[in-house]
Amino acid sequence: MRGGPARVLETLRRADGRSCSGETLSRAEGVSRAQVWKHIETLRALGYDIEACAGEGYRLTRTPDRLYPEEILAGLATRWLAREIHWFDETDSTNRVALELARSGAPHGTTVIAESQTAGRGRLGRSFFSPPHLNLYTSIVLRPTLTTASAPTWILAAATACAETIDGYCAPGEVEIKWPNDVLLRGSKTSGILMELAAEATQVSFLVLGIGINLNVDRGDLPDEFRAHATSLSSHLHAPVDRIAFASSLYLQLEGVLDACAERGFDAVRTRFERFFRMRGREVRVLEIDGGETAGRAVGIDPDGALRIRTAAGREKRVIAGDVTLAKGNA
Amino acid sequence: MRGGPARVLETLRRADGRSCSGETLSRAEGVSRAQVWKHIETLRALGYDIEACAGEGYRLTRTPDRLYPEEILAGLATRWLAREIHWFDETDSTNRVALELARSGAPHGTTVIAESQTAGRGRLGRSFFSPPHLNLYTSIVLRPTLTTASAPTWILAAATACAETIDGYCAPGEVEIKWPNDVLLRGSKTSGILMELAAEATQVSFLVLGIGINLNVDRGDLPDEFRAHATSLSSHLHAPVDRIAFASSLYLQLEGVLDACAERGFDAVRTRFERFFRMRGREVRVLEIDGGETAGRAVGIDPDGALRIRTAAGREKRVIAGDVTLAKGNA
Repeated sequence: MRGGPARVLETLRRADGRSCSGETLSRAEGVSRAQVWKHIETLRALGYDIEACAGEGYRLTRTPDRLYPEEILAGLATRWLAREIHWFDETDSTNRVALELARSGAPHGTTVIAESQTAGRGRLGRSFFSPPHLNLYTSIVLRPTLTTASAPTWILAAATACAETIDGYCAPGEVEIKWPNDVLLRGSKTSGILMELAAEATQVSFLVLGIGINLNVDRGDLPDEFRAHATSLSSHLHAPVDRIAFASSLYLQLEGVLDACAERGFDAVRTRFERFFRMRGREVRVLEIDGGETAGRAVGIDPDGALRIRTAAGREKRVIAGDVTLAKGNA
Repeated sequence: MRGGPARVLETLRRADGRSCSGETLSRAEGVSRAQVWKHIETLRALGYDIEACAGEGYRLTRTPDRLYPEEILAGLATRWLAREIHWFDETDSTNRVALELARSGAPHGTTVIAESQTAGRGRLGRSFFSPPHLNLYTSIVLRPTLTTASAPTWILAAATACAETIDGYCAPGEVEIKWPNDVLLRGSKTSGILMELAAEATQVSFLVLGIGINLNVDRGDLPDEFRAHATSLSSHLHAPVDRIAFASSLYLQLEGVLDACAERGFDAVRTRFERFFRMRGREVRVLEIDGGETAGRAVGIDPDGALRIRTAAGREKRVIAGDVTLAKGNA
């Protein structure tokens, strides 16, 4: 939405539930009453409930449950993140769109949001279940001055922002980060991160950070293969989540951790990350990308984001990229 | 070139300078004499000199100085590298083309060659002077199982293959690698490498290795800004270089070092690299990507490909990404 309808919406929103006369709207817009009516119809088609009372004018009674850029921007306190939002009712994958935007020169912070994804992607080529109008699927173009070797720490930083945002809705101790990029709610996955990047040798050209968070999908509606290990924030809270408010907080939180990382490296957000890192001392099993498998006790996170594991033989091993299974019941 | 003309060329080539009758060619091809004649004309248009002697048939007298895939494949001993070659008389940038091929799923080893580039790219956004029909501009799509952190060592490996190939034409001690990716001939640059990659977090999705080598361009024809620090193999040898033979050796050498790297890491090619690494002990100045500058004595190369420098204050520093200036006259 741009231009007239966006400006009419803005005026109605500022009226804060009171009516605006067609006269006021047409004067504010500098357009005819007929044109105002056309804009109102456009807004209604987008799902806005707008009452027309004879003699009183128009009144905004309900905003739709859609992650429209105007809705998010209205409550967004960021400086550079998500100041430009590309919204889709449906797309194949927000990361795919963001990568294409990045390649065409989209600036730092450009954000893609989709209400649903037909080919939502998770890590290691997995799919990400993306039903419409319930969750948050978003990808952000980033252009930091960063070496490829440091890039993985940005996943940990992003996971920290997701965990902190979810934590704001939960009781202490319920949220945890499963290295490197999953956020768990009482042990069940609610959020995943997929970072993709383009680099020239050792220097990152751009990153795309894709974040998928189960907000209002019902746990019972998750596909069989996910249900046992996944949940949603609303299923956890037994109450629906305002997706727009959630997205705005997440973007603000994310901007903060990424700015800190860009200025002073991962060390700057390490304490915040460690608040949600409860794997230390637990038995884990890691499937590495080269097909190898390591089992042992998680010891900690190295400055470059690698997971340190002590094997049964007492040897310490660093895992840079891999897929972790937590042994149950030894937290 | 595909199909009929390629097969006629193959038959003429196998005749090794002797004539093939039109009859032989048309039987071998299973096509009419008129069709054979059309194929001969196609080949002539591509620059092949083919004599037609009455009563004797056709004879290949000269192959053109073009890096046609058929010419390279005829003498290529690689297993997977450059088995599929995309040739362009002119393109903007072979790396740009290879990245696009990689994104569309082109397999490991897919190779792009251009006779000239209108927007040849060097490292750090610099341009690469790419006049037509004189040098080698090639980019290779690679799909290794590799972490992004290890990717920079593949530049060193590629530089090793370039140095070894050039070294085959030169006297001992004339060829040197300037970390990370330039090959110098008696101190003047003859070859540059541009690696670009796409990654999912810590795991490389694909690499593109772009290699530009000054072969037959005359040193005096280089633009002013390059002439002082660059040369070409032919200017060095005072004799033209067979570009097809050079490309075939380079691809073979490259396949070897990359296979070794993929199996056992950079350590597997370290000795070969170090043969050309003469920076140790020399004064260098490094402009880092974050704008910082480090000066000191080069100490060596770390296992991850970083350059170790000892500053005047005696502190050791690792440089992961940067642009090196060698102080003159202290080799």
